[in-house]
Amino acid sequence: MRTFEQYLEKLKTMRPNVYMDGGIVARDDARFMPGIRTIGKTFDMAADPEHSELTTAVSHLTGEKINRYTHIHQSQDDLLKKQKMTRMYCRQAGRCIQRCMGIDALNGISVVTKDMDNALGTEYHQRFLKYMEYYQKNDLVGNAAQTDVKGDRSLRAFQQEDPDMYLRIVERQKDGIIVRGAKAHNTIAPYADEIIAFPTRAMTTKDSDWAVAFAMPADTEGMYLVSVAHNQREKEELPSPFAETGTAHSITIFDNVFVPWERVFMCGEDKFAGQMASLFALYHRHSYTGCKPALTDILMGAAALVSEYNGLEKASHVRDKLADMVTVAELVYATGIAASVTSKCSASGTYVPEVVYTNVGRYHAGVNVYHEFEILADLAGGLAATLPHEKDFFEPTVGPLLNKYIKRKSGVSSEDIHRCYRLIEGLICSAPGAASQVSGIHGGGSPIMEKIAIMAQYDLSKNKELAKFLAGIKS
Amino acid sequence: MRTFEQYLEKLKTMRPNVYMDGGIVARDDARFMPGIRTIGKTFDMAADPEHSELTTAVSHLTGEKINRYTHIHQSQDDLLKKQKMTRMYCRQAGRCIQRCMGIDALNGISVVTKDMDNALGTEYHQRFLKYMEYYQKNDLVGNAAQTDVKGDRSLRAFQQEDPDMYLRIVERQKDGIIVRGAKAHNTIAPYADEIIAFPTRAMTTKDSDWAVAFAMPADTEGMYLVSVAHNQREKEELPSPFAETGTAHSITIFDNVFVPWERVFMCGEDKFAGQMASLFALYHRHSYTGCKPALTDILMGAAALVSEYNGLEKASHVRDKLADMVTVAELVYATGIAASVTSKCSASGTYVPEVVYTNVGRYHAGVNVYHEFEILADLAGGLAATLPHEKDFFEPTVGPLLNKYIKRKSGVSSEDIHRCYRLIEGLICSAPGAASQVSGIHGGGSPIMEKIAIMAQYDLSKNKELAKFLAGIKS
Amino acid sequence: MRTFEQYLEKLKTMRPNVYMDGGIVARDDARFMPGIRTIGKTFDMAADPEHSELTTAVSHLTGEKINRYTHIHQSQDDLLKKQKMTRMYCRQAGRCIQRCMGIDALNGISVVTKDMDNALGTEYHQRFLKYMEYYQKNDLVGNAAQTDVKGDRSLRAFQQEDPDMYLRIVERQKDGIIVRGAKAHNTIAPYADEIIAFPTRAMTTKDSDWAVAFAMPADTEGMYLVSVAHNQREKEELPSPFAETGTAHSITIFDNVFVPWERVFMCGEDKFAGQMASLFALYHRHSYTGCKPALTDILMGAAALVSEYNGLEKASHVRDKLADMVTVAELVYATGIAASVTSKCSASGTYVPEVVYTNVGRYHAGVNVYHEFEILADLAGGLAATLPHEKDFFEPTVGPLLNKYIKRKSGVSSEDIHRCYRLIEGLICSAPGAASQVSGIHGGGSPIMEKIAIMAQYDLSKNKELAKFLAGIKS
Amino acid sequence: MRTFEQYLEKLKTMRPNVYMDGGIVARDDARFMPGIRTIGKTFDMAADPEHSELTTAVSHLTGEKINRYTHIHQSQDDLLKKQKMTRMYCRQAGRCIQRCMGIDALNGISVVTKDMDNALGTEYHQRFLKYMEYYQKNDLVGNAAQTDVKGDRSLRAFQQEDPDMYLRIVERQKDGIIVRGAKAHNTIAPYADEIIAFPTRAMTTKDSDWAVAFAMPADTEGMYLVSVAHNQREKEELPSPFAETGTAHSITIFDNVFVPWERVFMCGEDKFAGQMASLFALYHRHSYTGCKPALTDILMGAAALVSEYNGLEKASHVRDKLADMVTVAELVYATGIAASVTSKCSASGTYVPEVVYTNVGRYHAGVNVYHEFEILADLAGGLAATLPHEKDFFEPTVGPLLNKYIKRKSGVSSEDIHRCYRLIEGLICSAPGAASQVSGIHGGGSPIMEKIAIMAQYDLSKNKELAKFLAGIKS
Repeated sequence: MRTFEQYLEKLKTMRPNVYMDGGIVARDDARFMPGIRTIGKTFDMAADPEHSELTTAVSHLTGEKINRYTHIHQSQDDLLKKQKMTRMYCRQAGRCIQRCMGIDALNGISVVTKDMDNALGTEYHQRFLKYMEYYQKNDLVGNAAQTDVKGDRSLRAFQQEDPDMYLRIVERQKDGIIVRGAKAHNTIAPYADEIIAFPTRAMTTKDSDWAVAFAMPADTEGMYLVSVAHNQREKEELPSPFAETGTAHSITIFDNVFVPWERVFMCGEDKFAGQMASLFALYHRHSYTGCKPALTDILMGAAALVSEYNGLEKASHVRDKLADMVTVAELVYATGIAASVTSKCSASGTYVPEVVYTNVGRYHAGVNVYHEFEILADLAGGLAATLPHEKDFFEPTVGPLLNKYIKRKSGVSSEDIHRCYRLIEGLICSAPGAASQVSGIHGGGSPIMEKIAIMAQYDLSKNKELAKFLAGIKS
Repeated sequence: MRTFEQYLEKLKTMRPNVYMDGGIVARDDARFMPGIRTIGKTFDMAADPEHSELTTAVSHLTGEKINRYTHIHQSQDDLLKKQKMTRMYCRQAGRCIQRCMGIDALNGISVVTKDMDNALGTEYHQRFLKYMEYYQKNDLVGNAAQTDVKGDRSLRAFQQEDPDMYLRIVERQKDGIIVRGAKAHNTIAPYADEIIAFPTRAMTTKDSDWAVAFAMPADTEGMYLVSVAHNQREKEELPSPFAETGTAHSITIFDNVFVPWERVFMCGEDKFAGQMASLFALYHRHSYTGCKPALTDILMGAAALVSEYNGLEKASHVRDKLADMVTVAELVYATGIAASVTSKCSASGTYVPEVVYTNVGRYHAGVNVYHEFEILADLAGGLAATLPHEKDFFEPTVGPLLNKYIKRKSGVSSEDIHRCYRLIEGLICSAPGAASQVSGIHGGGSPIMEKIAIMAQYDLSKNKELAKFLAGIKS
Repeated sequence: MRTFEQYLEKLKTMRPNVYMDGGIVARDDARFMPGIRTIGKTFDMAADPEHSELTTAVSHLTGEKINRYTHIHQSQDDLLKKQKMTRMYCRQAGRCIQRCMGIDALNGISVVTKDMDNALGTEYHQRFLKYMEYYQKNDLVGNAAQTDVKGDRSLRAFQQEDPDMYLRIVERQKDGIIVRGAKAHNTIAPYADEIIAFPTRAMTTKDSDWAVAFAMPADTEGMYLVSVAHNQREKEELPSPFAETGTAHSITIFDNVFVPWERVFMCGEDKFAGQMASLFALYHRHSYTGCKPALTDILMGAAALVSEYNGLEKASHVRDKLADMVTVAELVYATGIAASVTSKCSASGTYVPEVVYTNVGRYHAGVNVYHEFEILADLAGGLAATLPHEKDFFEPTVGPLLNKYIKRKSGVSSEDIHRCYRLIEGLICSAPGAASQVSGIHGGGSPIMEKIAIMAQYDLSKNKELAKFLAGIKS
Repeated sequence: MRTFEQYLEKLKTMRPNVYMDGGIVARDDARFMPGIRTIGKTFDMAADPEHSELTTAVSHLTGEKINRYTHIHQSQDDLLKKQKMTRMYCRQAGRCIQRCMGIDALNGISVVTKDMDNALGTEYHQRFLKYMEYYQKNDLVGNAAQTDVKGDRSLRAFQQEDPDMYLRIVERQKDGIIVRGAKAHNTIAPYADEIIAFPTRAMTTKDSDWAVAFAMPADTEGMYLVSVAHNQREKEELPSPFAETGTAHSITIFDNVFVPWERVFMCGEDKFAGQMASLFALYHRHSYTGCKPALTDILMGAAALVSEYNGLEKASHVRDKLADMVTVAELVYATGIAASVTSKCSASGTYVPEVVYTNVGRYHAGVNVYHEFEILADLAGGLAATLPHEKDFFEPTVGPLLNKYIKRKSGVSSEDIHRCYRLIEGLICSAPGAASQVSGIHGGGSPIMEKIAIMAQYDLSKNKELAKFLAGIKS
């Protein structure tokens, strides 16, 4: 297993193909460091014996101890542990831990490559296992590049005016393939080792050139990562763990990228594109049953703390709203447990979370995101939006006045109240806070996508038969 | 294990102390038969080998095969099976199966009697086990009499103007105790073998005379069961399984009832009253994670069927609303699974479902009840409320016209459409349908009670500490 | 203006063509009397000088004082008064006053007949005015027969397998027309003087035989009214105003009914069918801005009263829920005021309520119906569903016990608590109560219909232009 | 009436007492210019004859034409026009127009000063009218300084450890008074001419030193404005109206400020403090019935535009969500109309909006804010959160690729799509966007405050009497 330092050193050696705000930037640019520090926790805590039961696993390929973020789930217990680990990490980071996406994609690919081989006689699975061993040995950080830019949303891949609107095979060569297109919303990509690309939706036979999956280093020739970083404003006087972590995303452009065969996991098998798309979604939504409760924990903790400082912790409307937050968090977490203990073993040996529980959980999380922010905003009051700048609290003339007037409940220092509101400002009144609402809705698939997944899997006919039985309808 | 016939015969022999609509009525009065037939399913299906894995268990007292409705949970798997069985039975009955409440109470009592003995050196648990053996051997049907009539809701038991507003010990005698008071909302009581009474809330030391629990035959001297039955209107021409089952409740009055010591399970131990109250609630709410999904199944099945008959099954707003119903059902069911697999073994050996998952599940079910009825009403349209009487469809002049004009999608017979709407009328436009909304909210505790249970158990401080950590607050 | 007695006498003389529960019944059948008594209030209070400013108007045709329920709105103030009168009557009746529908239909017809004449040179409006004078002079009670039975909902009128699924002209004769079909959900019809029929939706040129409107006496040859009545169970010991009123509906079948030309208001003008359908809906939804607040008033009043009796009136969760009910009622009422003061005068001189305000008001009422019942159920507790029969409170043995145990707050008599719960049982735990939920959703058009009406009228492009302006988009 | 230039020149001459980010800043600091430009619209459009009917009024003091933002409402029509003007301005500015608050405060003060004079024989009203004439003549911009910092929320003003937690009179002198304290959330203050201070809540007799109201220039000796500005990131390549406006707030500290008597409008009259607090709230909530619909218009316009660009404008789920937004906007707007046409004339001659309609409107707006953002986020998709920086679209290597891959529906240019998403990013994924959620909840009073106002005014007893009447309860 790598250390944080090794991971960071490697980033510095990579080919510069990350763009931000008008030019090329280093992978260890200051604006990426909060994101990099977030990933750092997954190295530090995997090395910490106190946490290793959750944070590490034993490779089914080599028998060696590996970071759980490189593990393919071999049991129901693995899924339970992954969910628990996710909640723990997101609490530590104060936000999305990000590293889940790569391994969620690889778990999905592990299942589909085996199923393709069984159905079509291909040899993807062995190829995949070899790659997986490499991934585990090098303790890699992977980005999942799924969402194509999609052009006109009412058209399929092959119908687009510009065929590159979905990532596609433009040429099959002896040693590999050439691909072109772009994937959007690639969280973690600017500081990932690998980009793992795969379809965003089911494909028809006419779309077979768009049925493509592979994994390549993030600095491969022809790849451009145009990035944005979402960080808290730096704190000069009152640093805090919350302000030290962050996130970044890229749109990842593949401009005639060559992928050697040993890294190709799907190449034209359109019938399996949908399964690969939905299996990543499934694993990733299962991860959400761990991370979303952690985000609720944070919002809830802040809401409870500010209510305590305001002297209102026991007010019935406060208790009521906190209970709403507990309810959302634990309903979602419960679905992840249920999906884990009812997961099934696939032909590849990989365990697959139950679809309906996973999707209702992610759905419930998604439709409650804005409401949770609303609760914190409601309980915190307007100061979240009008808090003066940090420096003003230390300015000689107005600083003492601000510290006098920010006081609330007796016994709580001005600094603690200031810190509490600074956290809340970061959570709900900052650009990254606002972005976390959007990713809370869309990450892993929008609520409408979960409903579609639910209805695709749910056997509605058994309930129609039940209604017929009860009504005495025989036909 | 008993048969339905044996159960029914026993009812006929009981002392007549059931009142309804102005006088004493027989326990097998026609108005109780739909309820009795509902209970009947729990005898019939326990005897059916196809269902016995779910519907029966092995007694930990005698090693004999028993009806699962007389079983004390010995494992996490027992809780999972109980939940699954509950959903199955409620689907079969088209409604609340009712028999859960007695065994939910007894599971709670099994835990508390042991805890009391351990803490106080009493001998309740042995006494309870002896009773339990009797209950299993005779395959009894028990009512859980918990909710006191409560008088002024802002006062405790000992503060009431009339001390009988909570059931209480009025005298301790050599052979037993005399109790007085009344318990409300006693579903199943008119056709139960036994009444199991226990506290409705925590008690203070001043309330110790109100800390009382016991089980007595439902026809004991001094007990009056004033009843109401909720049945569908009888169908003369188009009988259906839905119209054959039903429910009844009583207010059970204890007018100086003598209870011999061997049937007393709490007598003045006020400190344990709250635990007993909340443990029944917990087991019963766990049962709701099985029954509420079944009720959603029925409403959802009817909604899907009528949409199909209307030719609108694929309309996006219909799919969307059906998905809402699936989401409610499976979120609730998932919490029951999670509560089962994280249940803990108590000192008595009885497994206790995890509190938070159970309560968020029951809460979510409760706050969605009315919305589920709304969805069915929305999709069914006004005919649910204006459907002519059954006989009019068979009247020579207007019958043929009604059958002509009730037609919907080609290929579906008038009778099937009629039957479908008759079911929906029964579900959402009848007195029992309306009552099922109310019991869907209040049964096992109103939503506000679940929130209280959640907040009592949830460790909010760990999330406040998390907020402090992220904000950099040290104090 | 007629008296209640004159109205009732007239009903007794009508040709018996009302069917219920398997045969012909009299129009003054006991089961219709609660509905008839409801309508009676509109005669009694029109005659009462204290209420006459609201309940009467001056005919613009004759200058005579008329019942406002026969008035065509001549000003914004007329619309404000209609709304206010509606709330007042529904509060008095404890439910839907029902008589609004006829005059809502006639207001719509007044506008469309004029517009047709202007566009097509027809002479419908004069014909209509003559009928209207007759209607006012005889102070008639009219039913609005709009909703066709509709067969397969995915097909238009002319596409149906059976062409009678929408009411249609089967023959044009010298003196009039022959019509066939059936209209559903005809509230008030069993005790109405007149049936006013008109299209339920827009029609295409192929549907012109289905574009038909007329008014005929409810006992016309060929008409069959198959009815259901929704009444409270009769109270023998504790009569109450709430239990004395009620509702009835019919499916009204037109089996080759002859309509003379002077009563035909549309005959094949398919282009105007949609306008007529939507104008009735508009007037009727405007009436809902008066009646729905009244129904909320009743539910809210019951909720406040039972909370007071329980000693919980000041509990914050009770106040919070009552405020929710006030908010729904007054939001809806406010839209009716806004729609009235922004109403426009049509070519006919009739004032037409503003469409968007009216529809958002009715929509908001519709989507909150179930939630309002939920609040009352929540605050009332389980006794609404398990209240013993009235007679049991007077039975010698258990009556005194019930009266002892039903007591709540000191100083409130058992009878008052009993009466309060009897009212609540009627409101939320009875068949008519359940039916009022369904009619609260669907009456005047389901929420989805209001959304369609809103989007049809709302100029969304002005807001897209606004977004373009703010974004700096020029194209 | 002033011009924008005159207003700006005046700002430059004011004493520098505005602090931001660690030091004193000029009032025309670049970070305040977006806010100043927002206010500028209220000068420009008042001078524009096309808009003058809405944007100007005739002074009841001088008979001269004045900016409506300096007008005291003399009729129902004035309130209707104010509401309409507010919606118009906020649409133009793309956000809160801010200038409403000063005049809302002055309208409230106009009523209370008269009522105080009538009750107590004071002479506040004449003093106020003189000030008002000055305010109109100089076309001033006023901030409403209401919300005290409040310290421990569970204590009243006089109970606070530090008595300055509510603004108070520390000394009464011959020529005026000395005040100390701080007011929070003072939008517009850094570029306002005047600060109008008044109580935030009802006061008891012990709080009389805290019952104080006055108006003073914003640069008065002893006043410190510690500010934050919420602006969109500056656009270098693609400027837009949306990016040019903005908002700023301050916490306004009064450190022993002298106020001459002619500018004191309340000084110790504790009984009238509550009325003054709630009347400002009432006028300001009435303003919200104009501004909140405008903000919905903007979010809705953006949602409709992006859906059009995505080729999904006609999808049923899109139409459904847009209809939700229309419904919120027009329900809220309707309440403002209703509150205007039912407004009453006070003793001062000033018209006062009806309380219940105003409050239910503001409440409904407040509880829907987050949901509206959610809808836009849902329809826009993840790109709102991951849109690359503006400069990257113009960078030679990746710029052309970004413009290729951002394309959506055929016929819409890359720039327009980019602009559309830049607007949406500003609305929902920026710090000012997030702050607008918080101010959407708390501005003019949080939802809980409106519920309190509603319940304080609503005559619940009339509905309890109604329930008693219907139940037959005589006592």
